[in-house]
Formats: sequence, C-alpha cells, structure tokens
Amino acid sequence: MSTSGAKNLSFILEGIKQVKFEDRPVPEIIDRHDVLVNVKYTGVCGSDVHYWEHGSIGQFVLREPMVLGHESSGVISHVGPAVKTLKVGDRVALEPGVPCRRCEPCKSGKYNLCIDMAFAATPPYDGTLAKYYRLPEDFCYKLPETMSLQEGALMEPLGVAVHIVKQGEVTPGSSVVVFGSGPVGLLCCAVAKAFGASKVIAVDIQQTRLDFAKKYIATSTFMPGKVSAEENAIRMKEENDLGPGADVVIDASGAEPSVHTGIHVLKTGGTYVQGGMGRSEITFPIMAACTKELNVKGSFRYGSGDYKLGIELVSTGKIDVKSLITGEVKFEDAENAIKDVKMGKGIKTLIAGI
Amino acid sequence: MSTSGAKNLSFILEGIKQVKFEDRPVPEIIDRHDVLVNVKYTGVCGSDVHYWEHGSIGQFVLREPMVLGHESSGVISHVGPAVKTLKVGDRVALEPGVPCRRCEPCKSGKYNLCIDMAFAATPPYDGTLAKYYRLPEDFCYKLPETMSLQEGALMEPLGVAVHIVKQGEVTPGSSVVVFGSGPVGLLCCAVAKAFGASKVIAVDIQQTRLDFAKKYIATSTFMPGKVSAEENAIRMKEENDLGPGADVVIDASGAEPSVHTGIHVLKTGGTYVQGGMGRSEITFPIMAACTKELNVKGSFRYGSGDYKLGIELVSTGKIDVKSLITGEVKFEDAENAIKDVKMGKGIKTLIAGI
Amino acid sequence: MSTSGAKNLSFILEGIKQVKFEDRPVPEIIDRHDVLVNVKYTGVCGSDVHYWEHGSIGQFVLREPMVLGHESSGVISHVGPAVKTLKVGDRVALEPGVPCRRCEPCKSGKYNLCIDMAFAATPPYDGTLAKYYRLPEDFCYKLPETMSLQEGALMEPLGVAVHIVKQGEVTPGSSVVVFGSGPVGLLCCAVAKAFGASKVIAVDIQQTRLDFAKKYIATSTFMPGKVSAEENAIRMKEENDLGPGADVVIDASGAEPSVHTGIHVLKTGGTYVQGGMGRSEITFPIMAACTKELNVKGSFRYGSGDYKLGIELVSTGKIDVKSLITGEVKFEDAENAIKDVKMGKGIKTLIAGI
Amino acid sequence: MSTSGAKNLSFILEGIKQVKFEDRPVPEIIDRHDVLVNVKYTGVCGSDVHYWEHGSIGQFVLREPMVLGHESSGVISHVGPAVKTLKVGDRVALEPGVPCRRCEPCKSGKYNLCIDMAFAATPPYDGTLAKYYRLPEDFCYKLPETMSLQEGALMEPLGVAVHIVKQGEVTPGSSVVVFGSGPVGLLCCAVAKAFGASKVIAVDIQQTRLDFAKKYIATSTFMPGKVSAEENAIRMKEENDLGPGADVVIDASGAEPSVHTGIHVLKTGGTYVQGGMGRSEITFPIMAACTKELNVKGSFRYGSGDYKLGIELVSTGKIDVKSLITGEVKFEDAENAIKDVKMGKGIKTLIAGI
Repeated sequence: MSTSGAKNLSFILEGIKQVKFEDRPVPEIIDRHDVLVNVKYTGVCGSDVHYWEHGSIGQFVLREPMVLGHESSGVISHVGPAVKTLKVGDRVALEPGVPCRRCEPCKSGKYNLCIDMAFAATPPYDGTLAKYYRLPEDFCYKLPETMSLQEGALMEPLGVAVHIVKQGEVTPGSSVVVFGSGPVGLLCCAVAKAFGASKVIAVDIQQTRLDFAKKYIATSTFMPGKVSAEENAIRMKEENDLGPGADVVIDASGAEPSVHTGIHVLKTGGTYVQGGMGRSEITFPIMAACTKELNVKGSFRYGSGDYKLGIELVSTGKIDVKSLITGEVKFEDAENAIKDVKMGKGIKTLIAGI
Repeated sequence: MSTSGAKNLSFILEGIKQVKFEDRPVPEIIDRHDVLVNVKYTGVCGSDVHYWEHGSIGQFVLREPMVLGHESSGVISHVGPAVKTLKVGDRVALEPGVPCRRCEPCKSGKYNLCIDMAFAATPPYDGTLAKYYRLPEDFCYKLPETMSLQEGALMEPLGVAVHIVKQGEVTPGSSVVVFGSGPVGLLCCAVAKAFGASKVIAVDIQQTRLDFAKKYIATSTFMPGKVSAEENAIRMKEENDLGPGADVVIDASGAEPSVHTGIHVLKTGGTYVQGGMGRSEITFPIMAACTKELNVKGSFRYGSGDYKLGIELVSTGKIDVKSLITGEVKFEDAENAIKDVKMGKGIKTLIAGI
Repeated sequence: MSTSGAKNLSFILEGIKQVKFEDRPVPEIIDRHDVLVNVKYTGVCGSDVHYWEHGSIGQFVLREPMVLGHESSGVISHVGPAVKTLKVGDRVALEPGVPCRRCEPCKSGKYNLCIDMAFAATPPYDGTLAKYYRLPEDFCYKLPETMSLQEGALMEPLGVAVHIVKQGEVTPGSSVVVFGSGPVGLLCCAVAKAFGASKVIAVDIQQTRLDFAKKYIATSTFMPGKVSAEENAIRMKEENDLGPGADVVIDASGAEPSVHTGIHVLKTGGTYVQGGMGRSEITFPIMAACTKELNVKGSFRYGSGDYKLGIELVSTGKIDVKSLITGEVKFEDAENAIKDVKMGKGIKTLIAGI
Repeated sequence: MSTSGAKNLSFILEGIKQVKFEDRPVPEIIDRHDVLVNVKYTGVCGSDVHYWEHGSIGQFVLREPMVLGHESSGVISHVGPAVKTLKVGDRVALEPGVPCRRCEPCKSGKYNLCIDMAFAATPPYDGTLAKYYRLPEDFCYKLPETMSLQEGALMEPLGVAVHIVKQGEVTPGSSVVVFGSGPVGLLCCAVAKAFGASKVIAVDIQQTRLDFAKKYIATSTFMPGKVSAEENAIRMKEENDLGPGADVVIDASGAEPSVHTGIHVLKTGGTYVQGGMGRSEITFPIMAACTKELNVKGSFRYGSGDYKLGIELVSTGKIDVKSLITGEVKFEDAENAIKDVKMGKGIKTLIAGI
C-alpha cells in the first residue's frame, strides 16, 4: 500500500514472520482522562521478536493481526476533557500497560499484577508502532527538557530494570551480581549503581558484552568458566572480595547456569531476583536456597513509581541511557529492526515514528 | 557398661547405626551466664534418624562419636554467677543452637544464620541426649506452670514451625496450603491457624496423615491426584474456593511434586516457604514464580522470639502439642525410638531423661 | 413534607442542628461498574454528630445541604452493565469513600490517602442516609449468609479498627494497650485479639465502659489515676506484667493524657498508633519517642483489604459486632439517634433504612 | 600533674566544669575477643559539652569522675587470643557502645536499644579520651588505606546520620528536608544524598550554616521566616517544587518550630525522624500526623551495619567528612575544644591522642 496520506499508519504482525503496514483508524478519546499520543520513537524488545518469530509467548497467542511495539515515546496530540497535567505538544514517555484499577492487586499497590491488564502488543491488545496511540493521562510521563524523545523510548526497559532492582531491595553498600548483559541486564547494573550498590558485577558469556558492561557501568565483570556452578560462585566471590557472598543477585539472562551460580554466590539471607525470561522449568538448587534462607523473587514488568524514578535517574544524570541506543531505523524499516535484534546487532535499536 | 552410678550418661552415635551409652564428664559452667540443665524429655527428629542411618547430612559429617538429640526440655540444676532469670529447679525448654553473637547475621537479628553456630547434635557438637546439658541462660525458656516437660520438648519443632510461618508472612484472613503432614507440617498448620489464617489446607499422600491433620487443626485436606501439578493446583483452588490462588504455601515435605503444585496454586504476589528438606536440586517452575512475582523463601531453624512465641501459643491454649506426642520410651531404649521414627510409627516419640 | 410516596427520601443537614427530610432524585448508574444500593442500616458516627453540632470538621465545612451518614449496609437494587460480582438482591456492606484510582497514593496501595477522595457525608459529598446510594461495585462487599444487615452496617467502624491495628503491626503474642473504649476502641481491642495479641488492655476514664470492654474482649482494663503519665505507665506495666513495656499502643481517645501515658508505657522500639481524633496540637513527650526509637503512626480511614478482612473476622466468629449494637431507630427518627450519640447513650445506634 | 611518663593519661570530668588529667591503669584484655586501642583522634560531641556544663543528661547523672569522649579512631595495640580480623598496628574507627548481646533487642537486630548497654562517656562508663581504650573486636572497624585517622574519628557522628537516614527510609528519588545544619544535620544531608535523594533541603536559622550546607552537599537551603509553621511549610514546598510535600523530614535540631514545620511540609504517608535532642516535651501537631498517616520515628545512636556503611560511603568518595573537620587541638587542650564547641566555633573539632 501507499503510506502517504495515511492517517494512522500501523506496523502489524499478521502471523509468524508476516508483517504489514496498514492505515488504521485514529483512536478516539473515550475516557475523560485519555490522551492521544503521536508516537515518535519505539525500541524493539525481545518480546516483539519472539511474537514475530513464534506467533506466541507462553499463553499469549496471536489470533488476530496485532500492532507490535511497546517501548515508546511521543508527543501529545489530543487531550480528554478531564486531563490536567498534560497539554498538546508535551513530550512524554509511554507506560504501555493499563491496569483495571479495581482488582485486589491494583488496589493494594501492585498494578503490574492486575488480573485484567491491557498491555500493548500482548494479544489481543495492539501495540504502539502506529502513528497514534491512546493512553490515560497518568500512564504518560512528561519528559524534562533535558531529555530527548530517544531517551524517552528507553524509559520502558529502564522501568523494567528499576522494578527488578527494587524487588532486589538493593541498598547503599550492597554487592550486586547481574547475570546477562543485554539491555535489561545493563540497565539493572546502572540502576543498582544508582541505588548505591558498592559492587556491581556483570556476568555474561560474551566478552564483547562484558567489555561494554565494564565501560558502561559495572564495577567488575565475570565470564563463567566451564566448571560447576559452585566453582564459578567460589571464583566470583574470591575475585570480587565478596566475603560470605553477594547481597543481591539479579538474573537478566533466563539461563539455567546463571540461576545456579546466582544461588550459590549469594550470602545467607541474600535476595535473588528472576528478571529474565527463559525455560518454564529448570533444575534449581532448592536446598541451598532453603538452608541459606534466601529470598527468591520474581519481577514482572513495572509498577507504581517505577517510570517516575527512571526519568528522575536519567534527568539527574545518574543513569545514562543514550549509550545504549546503537541504531535507529525509519518506520517503514521496522521489520529490519526486528531482524537486527534477532541477530544480536547492537544493544537497542529504535524505530522512528511518523 | 553398667549405667547405674553414671554421672552423665549419654547416648552416643559412633558410626552408621552404631550407638552406645557412655558416662561422660558433667559439663562445667564456663561462662558466667551459663546454666546446667538436667535433661528430662527429648523428641526424636528426622535429622537424628538421618545421622544414625547415613552418618552425615549434607556437609555435616560424623567424624567423632557424638551425643544425639536436640529437642529437649529439662530442669535447671546449676546456674552461673551472672544468671538472673533462672534458678535451680526451674523447668525449661532448650533452644539447642548457640550463635556466636558477633557476626553480621547475629547482630542484624538473624542469629539462625550465624556463621559460627554451635548446634546440638550437628557434628562436631554434642547433642542433648545426656543427663546434663549446658546452655547460656538466654537459650533456656522457663515453662509456665500450665505446661508439662513433655510439652516443653515439643518447643523445638514448634520453633521450627513458628519460624516457617513467620517467613510466610501469614496474616489474619490468609489462605495457607501446607504440604506434608509430619510433625513440622502439622505444627505449621497449627501456627498458621494461630496467626489467623482463615483456610489451612493440609496436603499429604497418606490418607491416615490427612485424617489426623483434619482432626488436629486443618480446615481442609487435599490428596494429590496422579495428574500434573497444574491440574492438582486447579482442583485445590476449586475445592477450597481459593479464587486466584492461595496467599501462602509452605512446603514441609521436601518432595518435588509438592514444590510444583505449591508454586502453581499460589496467587500472584503470593509467598512460598521451603521448610522441608529434600533433594539438593529439583526441577522448578521458575517462570511461573517470575511472572506471578512470587516470594520464594527458605526457612532455617528458628531465631529471635520464635521459642517465646511458641510457648505463648501453647500456654494460652492456641496450639495443642500434646496430641502430637504418640509415644515415650526410656532413656536406655533411645535407639528403639529412632527406629520407630524411621518406620514412620506415630507422630512424635519422646525419650525420657534420667 | 409527606414522605410517603417519596422516591429517594434523604436525611439532610442544612446547617448547625438544622436537619430535614427531602425527596431527592434517585441516583443514576453513570459508570459501567456502578451499582445502586437500597440502604438498610446506617450507624451514627461521631463525625455525623460533629457536623450536626458544629457544621464543620477541620477544613471540611458544610456549605450546601448535605445528606448525612456513612456507616451503611443495604441491598443491591440496580447494577451497571459491567458489574460481574454482584446482582440485584445481594446484601452488601458499603465502603463509603471512592478514591480517584489515578493519583500516586491510589496507585501505590494507599487509596485512603487519595488526594481526590469522594467520601460520603464529608462536604461536599452526600452521605448514605437516603433510600438509595450509588457506589462502584468494588466498594460494595457481599455479606455472607451468616451475617445480618445490622452487622453489615458495623463493617465501617470495624474497617477503621482493622486499619488501625494493621498500622500497629500487631502480631501474635503482642501486648496491646488501647486507650478509649468507645466503638472504635472496643473494635480495636477485638481486632488486636483476633490478630493474636496475648494481652489487650483497655483504658478509659469511665468504669462502665471498662466493664463493658472487659466483658466484651479485653484481657484486662486500666483506669488512669490522678498521677503523672509516667506513674500511670509504671502501674500499668506492673499490673499487666508488661516487663520493659507494651509492644503496641493504640489511641482511640484523642485525649492528651492518653497520648502521654501511651508513649511512656511502650517498650523501646514499640509502635504507637493515633487513631482517635482530638485537638490539633497537644504537648507530646518527643524525647521519650526519640530515645526509645518508637514508631508513631497515624491511621486514617481504611484501605485495601480492610473491609474484606473485617467481614472475614466477623463471619468466622472471631469478632462479635452484634454486642455493640445497643439501639435501633426508624429512619424518620434519625435526628434522635444523633442526639443519643451526643449524649453518650449506648455503644452504637443504627438508623433503619426505608 | 606531670603527664610525661604517664601510662594511660586520661581526660576526666569530675564535676560541672571541673576536669583533670589523670594517669589511669591501662585496661586489660578480659574477653578473648577484646582488643586494646591506642586512641589517636576524638571528636567533641554536644553530649560531652552537656555533661561538662550540666553534669548530667536526662536520667544519666555523673556520680563518679568519668573519662569523656566517644567519637574516636585509633591504632590496635594489643589483641585478645580469639581475635581474628584485626592485628596490632591496624587503624580503626571505634564504635563506643557495647551491648549485652543477650537481651531481646540485641537478639532481634536492634542492639542500639540494648537494655544493658555500656556506652562510652555515659555514666557510669568511661569514655575514650585516654591513651588506651578496650573494645571487643567487632566494635572496631578497620579503616581502608585511603582513609585517615582523622576521618576515622568522624565515623561516630556519621554512624548517627546513617542510622537516622535508614530510619527515614530514604530511597532513590526521595525529597528530604533536614532541620539543623550542625555536624549531624550536615551528615544527614550527605547520607540522604548518597542514598539517592533527589532533593536535600537544609534548614537552619543561621545563614552562615546554610551557606556551608549548600556548599557542602544540600541541593537547596531554607531559612524559616517569622511566620507560622504552616506558612513556612507552604513556602518550602513552593520554593522546592515539592508538590504534595516532602517524602522524608529529618529533625537534627531538636527545636519545636522545626518539628512543626517538618510535620506540615510532609506529604501524606511521609516519614519524619526525630534525630536531634531537645526539650522532653513540646507541642506537637498530632492531628496532622494522624490524618496524613505519617510515620514519626525516633532514631537512637547506631546499630547493625551503620559504621560499616559509613566507612564504605567515605572510602568510595560518596561522602566527604574532611570538610567538616574545622579544628584540631592537642590532648592537653581538650577542655578548650569543649569550650569551642560550646561557643559554636567551627563544625567539628578533633582532640589529638597521645
């Protein structure tokens, strides 16, 4: 199709590795608190790639064509009659999951666990890779003047990292080990540092990623050897002077060996956070977790205050997200961006809006 | 040997399934805060059986002959010069692990995780199955007049259960599922109920144990079917009207299928406590734990306030431990008690002191 | 006016001690999640009396005629199109404050601190003393069959007490002192007991109220003497064997001497909750609070889970609210009920609905 | 007396404004874990001045001559037979209060609330202003090579500040208001910043102190006007863009107007920490604390992990304590240092050891 003249050009996944561009109707303001955002930048996430490649993630299966994308920033183009904090022209980061606000998790401060969440680009909900996207006012975060729209698009993975680090109860002086040096792992390193961690040890099996992590923010790096998880944990403790073990372990890799080494490197009473997605079931050293009285926690998306804090950390210079943006493509090349991520090119590729 | 005339007759494990009675020297008061206890009742624990059968538990290996036993009550027979709260003749429950009081876990309120713990009947430390046992004053808990010395011996497994339920953050109105209906599982049910849990669901694979649990304290019971963990979890939710899932799961079984069913029956944001010991590594549904943002915790022994609360709960009638005492043997028949536990006879067998 | 034939007869405060009955329009379902409740019972609260007597509470000033009442139960008479959990005819307790669901407190689990709360019978919002009242579905709590509508009306003050006791972090075995034996103080005693408190000491300056408290639920009572707060605190500790002090103090009196005695009777590290309303400023023993490292907390209304737990505690027999209902008047006698509360007659008077 | 040849010259308070130097016996190693420290630097604290001027602080009354001083660093000169982590010659910061390790607060992680604390220069316990001071190993903290002994002496007031900020639950992004810009107030500002606070507002009534605070670490300063606490709070919110109010207020002034302004400037649900000592009783806006559901906490000395974290923050360059050292006197001029502090000269004066 010709895209010129399109009112709300959208990038749509129709089936496995089948995408198209389509001019969809411009969303209308429904709720008095809604705003309409002209999307300007969208990062490509592993989940976009996974839907493109497999047509599903776990229980979420693509049954109808769906707009992809959920890591976005944009400019407000319309506001509902009750909107007070935003006006047309404001530059915002988009938090792309809208909870029901009524269920028990919503009302008890855990809206990320909402039982009726509408999350962008998770079937059956359309994503943000369109010209326009509608959101309630309180899920759009105004960007400070010092922040670019490109940086704004990074607030989504940063929100994920903020949530993980909060789950990890990282406090000043903590020693933190982060498994996996992809975008989320790197951001976890940065957030842990901003939370005052004294030691932030990045772990990965690719030396180039470790080099980047070290240059970016990690206080040290660790390449696991072809030995047992216990032996890797012992070496990690020795090399990093961790004494009885690390205070916090974050897994942003989803890999079974990471989980094992992570459990073994923790001190008694330490905290482990599973942030990365991987196989549904793995072998797990449960007796070590039991006798060391560990706290093993999941972390899922982001919740109250996470975006706000992410923007605060970036705008005050405590976290640099610019260095993670390693590519930018035009809207019409969106599929290429997905293929690049699939191939492991760069850290974070942005798709420009229209 | 003739035991008559012995000053401190002790029941000693020499090697695998090799026990003897020996007259050991009466312990002396060393620290000004020490007391000497004439041990009156000692429960048999699975760990005693394990040392007797295998000579080791994990990293703890019997290298020298060791006195067994750590679930004890007794009567104070001597007090050190600085002892203020106890006097000769007082009836006490013994907390059988003495921490260093100086390490980071000790000073931050987690002395059960002490890095230099001296725990009774854990090599190389002798246990309590002797006429006399020495402890610091603050690890002896005076029994109220309403409590018997037999009940006092149950304070150790009750302390384990109190600690597990605290780790589980059970609050009034909670729904709690307890896997395993042995002594600790049953006591977890009782403590959860005393903490205000509305639903306490006992799970076991032996109907007789479920019958006992139901009669004892559980609000309902569940016998897992020969189906998947997910299917068992669904049936458990339905039968017990658990809605989105249980608030808290406690595993006191150590069995892999329990762990799986437990993770699947939890609501998002729920808490899982691993209290039972089993295989070092098992398969584990880690993605369910991650996306439901569960708190998976270990529980190890007992710590600050646990014995005190256990005694409070028993002496105020909120928990019945008498019903769990299903046998009592003479000191000289100690090995028979171990064999009985090994055979699964009764719930809790006590060995009388001398 | 003649009230027969009225569609939505309402009891309205026009000015200080000026009330009237008026037939107001029946509220319409606006939001898809709204329900309409036929109000059946309404308790009289001190705040109703205060508005009636003074025309204002603090910053909240009656400027327009306002329907009074907010402690209500009723029967569902209409449901909005999206309502799933309730149907016409269901008996419910009403939570009478609807938060905005969008502000930072709402999204972080503290909707009682909503910055844009619409609370019944707090100017400018009308209360529940009318034939019909509209609420969102999730603020109506279905009553179990075992609970009466009269008990349902008590869920509001019980929610207040649940919230206070939660703020107090009362745990099993705690010693709790509750100052003030009015309806909220009595309910705090009951909730503390249900939370496992071992000692619940009711304090009041009227012997008849102490007698009621003792008969109702308190483990002991205390009548302050005409001595200093420190001296009263010492006697309270001695009489109740509190050792270094109480674990938790709840003030449901709002009286300065209570606050002082409460601070002094607490152990180091104890928790004090200000539940009762009184003078804006009082003298306060701040150095005792500082050097004992106390936690002094406010408690305001009720939040996530409080009503649900209150209903659970009543329906499982852990809390008795029936004994607190000491009077019932017809709707047309509503003003008499207010006058009775003003005079201190009985514990809780209900106004029947129409 | 002639001090040359003295074995353990000590600076002793005999009575109000009566001091002397005396050669006391060198302390002996008693416990196997004890060390003997040759004290090298000691800061003067307000409490030293208070004992010198009044002979008492609250319930603590000087009845026998007492060595002053408790903010010290030094060099290990002897070690007990069980000491493992320190050796002769090690440079250490001294934590000058040794708890009993046996009471309920000690065992539950709050040893600062120990009911049998032996605290330096708190009657009847001698302080550190002597040549030698004995401490258990675990209350001496080895200084990293990058830290001087002068900085080491500041670890005591820094420990106080760390404890206060922890009590305040300051998290990244918090807005924190600190009343009082003396040494502890300034260190609270620095610790709050190191904990990630975005806004740290120093409040004082002396412009020179505010200027120092701004230059040192505060993000902004506030000089209260001669208006009501509410009005000062409103201006503070406006000038600092605090929206609904500050997240955390720390009082390090002990002054009643600070407390009032602090309570009024807090957002709903905010945390107030009383760190400064002042009058026993003050007027207090308790209804504001109640309806805003504030957490009002005391902070007393320091506990588990506080010194360790303080050293970490200084040695990693996150906190500068050198700038606060504004004077140094010889040991024999110790009284002059006290007089200087009394006169408000400088920020922190150190007394050199011998």
